[in-house]
Amino acid sequence: MNLLNNDVIVALATPVGEGAISIIRISGNGAIEKVDSIFDGKITLTEAKTHTLHYGNILNNNHKIIDDVLVSVFKNPNSYTGEDAIEISSHSSTIVVKNIIETLVAKNVRLAEPGEFTKRAFLNGKLDLTQAEAVADIINSRTEASLRGARNQLDGILSKKIDTLRSQLINSTSLIELELDFAEEDLEFVSKSKVLSEIENLISEIDNLLATYSFGRVIRDGVNVAIVGKPNVGKSSLLNYILKESRAIVSEIPGTTRDVIREEVSIDGILFKLFDTAGIRLTDDAVEKEGVERSRNAVKNSDVIILIDEVVNGIPTELYNELTNLIDEKRIIKVLNKSDLSNAVYDNSAIKISVKNETGIDELLEMLKEKALGSNSFTEKSAVINNVRHFDALSKAKNDLLEATDSLKNNLSGEFISVNLRGAEDSLGEIIGKVTADDILNNIFNKFCIGK
Amino acid sequence: MNLLNNDVIVALATPVGEGAISIIRISGNGAIEKVDSIFDGKITLTEAKTHTLHYGNILNNNHKIIDDVLVSVFKNPNSYTGEDAIEISSHSSTIVVKNIIETLVAKNVRLAEPGEFTKRAFLNGKLDLTQAEAVADIINSRTEASLRGARNQLDGILSKKIDTLRSQLINSTSLIELELDFAEEDLEFVSKSKVLSEIENLISEIDNLLATYSFGRVIRDGVNVAIVGKPNVGKSSLLNYILKESRAIVSEIPGTTRDVIREEVSIDGILFKLFDTAGIRLTDDAVEKEGVERSRNAVKNSDVIILIDEVVNGIPTELYNELTNLIDEKRIIKVLNKSDLSNAVYDNSAIKISVKNETGIDELLEMLKEKALGSNSFTEKSAVINNVRHFDALSKAKNDLLEATDSLKNNLSGEFISVNLRGAEDSLGEIIGKVTADDILNNIFNKFCIGK
Repeated sequence: MNLLNNDVIVALATPVGEGAISIIRISGNGAIEKVDSIFDGKITLTEAKTHTLHYGNILNNNHKIIDDVLVSVFKNPNSYTGEDAIEISSHSSTIVVKNIIETLVAKNVRLAEPGEFTKRAFLNGKLDLTQAEAVADIINSRTEASLRGARNQLDGILSKKIDTLRSQLINSTSLIELELDFAEEDLEFVSKSKVLSEIENLISEIDNLLATYSFGRVIRDGVNVAIVGKPNVGKSSLLNYILKESRAIVSEIPGTTRDVIREEVSIDGILFKLFDTAGIRLTDDAVEKEGVERSRNAVKNSDVIILIDEVVNGIPTELYNELTNLIDEKRIIKVLNKSDLSNAVYDNSAIKISVKNETGIDELLEMLKEKALGSNSFTEKSAVINNVRHFDALSKAKNDLLEATDSLKNNLSGEFISVNLRGAEDSLGEIIGKVTADDILNNIFNKFCIGK
Repeated sequence: MNLLNNDVIVALATPVGEGAISIIRISGNGAIEKVDSIFDGKITLTEAKTHTLHYGNILNNNHKIIDDVLVSVFKNPNSYTGEDAIEISSHSSTIVVKNIIETLVAKNVRLAEPGEFTKRAFLNGKLDLTQAEAVADIINSRTEASLRGARNQLDGILSKKIDTLRSQLINSTSLIELELDFAEEDLEFVSKSKVLSEIENLISEIDNLLATYSFGRVIRDGVNVAIVGKPNVGKSSLLNYILKESRAIVSEIPGTTRDVIREEVSIDGILFKLFDTAGIRLTDDAVEKEGVERSRNAVKNSDVIILIDEVVNGIPTELYNELTNLIDEKRIIKVLNKSDLSNAVYDNSAIKISVKNETGIDELLEMLKEKALGSNSFTEKSAVINNVRHFDALSKAKNDLLEATDSLKNNLSGEFISVNLRGAEDSLGEIIGKVTADDILNNIFNKFCIGK
């Protein structure tokens, strides 16, 4: 598993588009020499100190000036990747960037793969795997809460937690394995109860972490909210009002396909993806079979449903029952609109609003946050799981630990127990990258953008 | 005219979009202190040396970490603007960038106007005005040739030429004004013939520069080529073939409105904008009056027309005559397609091609370049005009100089001549920014992107 290839790589690190400055990033063994060979400035870059900036020209292979630039020099190990690294700050023109990169490629510098700089940072021990993943999350963060979540993870709060659990597990494993080594002696009883209680404690800690996943996912990816109701009860006017009120509208991601109208909004820093399910049908209908299927999926994929009707109608029982066949009723918020038209209370379990008079909406938004975040009260210093890879690895570790406790209780041989404990150890190690396989790494870093 | 306000300004300098790194640029008197107040690193930035990089955290107003960043420190006058300046290199997330900028704004840092950094560079004498304009041209350059043209201008080749002409003019003016001071003495005759020959020499130099404008404009903005011909003679297959062959297709600018189909292509580094005038009509037609007007304008705005028909038909005389009513016949390239169908030569003035057999196209492309660039043989070190502002100012200078020669020849008073010479001096000064008015500067820098 020789993962670290430290040949010199290059990529544009800044976005493509209209701007003043572009940064071209170069890293690897010999990076500074490579850039030096096309740089014409007051200083020889190989003689420059780390963390210094130098003005000069980048020359093409015909020794003509491509652009005047600022070059940042980073000497191994004091760089993002841990290797010798250079950043070229040029004018932001696609032609300039293309010419500089092509000139370097002609000098046998290789185009970087997506995430390759961060992968090298990981392989050189500058970041662990959850921190590397947090880098991608920071870049992709679109709301305050998602940024804070990613920041928390990049700061190593999850890593430390996992590392602590893994160390405790390694201790327990060594007790079991000690017993295997001295099987003829009578250590069994003491270590067994001790190890059992340690493992049960670990399982409980893992359960606590697993319980943060729905919260973490909501923080990272946002909350899917479907607005469901019969025609003309105020679905789209409610949607528009929320969009207008929350002001911080998050722009649509280009290229998102939409079966239903979707708007994104940031409420107290949390991303809410609101679907107006205009025309949604939940019951079978021979003609509209595909449409029904789509509507059901939209409901199933929602974290919260706003079921809306008019105060004079009350909550439609049939529609409510259809929804509860698809999702947990705790995730449904009942809303009665047009409370201005009548004061009659039809349903104490529903929030009464008037979009027209702008009343009741604050209560609705509070309920929306409560449903989305649950009763969790994680602080900024809490370890939180927000990534399905981490969730799966923790679940796997938990299963191995449960098997180990069964084996212990049933007085199975230490070898069985040891295999399970080692398995759990590996699963925890996978999360932070202490145990890694090529395909896991490729899977993670391929999701990065090029230049990171 | 107190143009230089050196309060601290901030802007995102890199494009908005997906990427690894964003650069936030800060400049002005106190810029380093402002950033220092939100920076938590190993070093106090105000104590950092110029051209050094420092790793640390940017804190928000609640002293929480927004992001870990690299900060570049530039001390006045050794920066782009000539002021104290800082560049913050953060993760490329809109939320991170927004938070950092908002934190600075809360510290009374002002959002920069478009081009304000370059405007300050100009006002601090780091660049003259043609060089500042070249910065925008580099950022906007989309082909090799346009980049080289902008590079030439940023390197000061035009500035030096204008500066030399202006110095010569100042000499001539001082001779005239010397005569005014000593009007009673008999200096008149000697200086008059000397000044006349000097001014005529200047006019000739200005004429040479003005003659570069069509070339410079083509290099900077590209060549408009209309493909005109009757239906089904191969207009769109020729267009498609050129697009495919030249490979380096330049992508469409988003948002360009098109009345006719337009494709952009880079041939030997020069941008050609090809219009397929399918359905174009040049003659009046009561029903299609607006369409006719649009077609005529498309032809008038073309630098080159490819008039195409089949070799068996020959060039259509009527259409050719209509075209020559609109533009100079030198700008028309006659092309006869489907040369594979017949060897009969109908017209020696036409290029015979076969799109099907891929013959004759190279000759056509050579002709296209020849028509577009003319017989000009400017080297990379030639001063070239590519900007209508420069063209207008030079034309104005030339007119003033012509009036001055008239006055000299007609023995008018030295005061008249002096006024004209001073006018020409100002026009030349305007080009490089030795003479500037607020509105000229605003006009130039408002076209920049923010952050430059």
